[in-house]
Amino acid sequence: MSNVKALPLLDTGTDGSVAPCCPPLTERPMTAAEAETAAKMFKALGDPVRLRLFSAVASHEGGEACVCDISDVGVSQPTVSHHLKKLKEAGLLTSERRGTWVFYRVEPSVLTAMGLILRTP
Amino acid sequence: MSNVKALPLLDTGTDGSVAPCCPPLTERPMTAAEAETAAKMFKALGDPVRLRLFSAVASHEGGEACVCDISDVGVSQPTVSHHLKKLKEAGLLTSERRGTWVFYRVEPSVLTAMGLILRTP
Repeated sequence: MSNVKALPLLDTGTDGSVAPCCPPLTERPMTAAEAETAAKMFKALGDPVRLRLFSAVASHEGGEACVCDISDVGVSQPTVSHHLKKLKEAGLLTSERRGTWVFYRVEPSVLTAMGLILRTP
Repeated sequence: MSNVKALPLLDTGTDGSVAPCCPPLTERPMTAAEAETAAKMFKALGDPVRLRLFSAVASHEGGEACVCDISDVGVSQPTVSHHLKKLKEAGLLTSERRGTWVFYRVEPSVLTAMGLILRTP
């Protein structure tokens, strides 16, 4: 997929495997650097409209959606595009242009990494 | 524990069991009401200092901590108190006063609920 940016919540090992950036919250206090990275992802989901858009993409058929697929969140198409870009900048979505439209996709590994941070013992 | 507020991410059933407010992000688009509730929790963790404080409480011995236990996050004690209050208002921490100090505790069920929202199929 083109335009894939580095996902800040994940470190890619030399074997191509991915590991979460940060320990579970219950394991030990986060360092400043870990908290900077993880807070960006949580902040991106800390807006109701962005969260709805994220769930619209995440739950869409095939795990991807373009602005053209999303019309029921009650905001204009330019606003949808703006929020999807913000989610991409936060590393939560990747995108690929196909003709007129940009398609967005949720990286399941990012959800997994965030879930691990919230894991309880 | 005294001063326990309703945790907005959870619904308490008549049998006392708790259920997450919102479906997994990948299951279906969130409604506006669900997104309002869940976004508050993510937003509370969307600040690096608050996230470090939250992990300091969550990983502290016995799963609870007071301001007196937290000194290494690089902010003043009043700032620590301010952020802990914000985390409590967001439903992520509960608190109990014992003599001079207020002790904060992470509700594991809240972490579980947030983890479920991020669950991948």
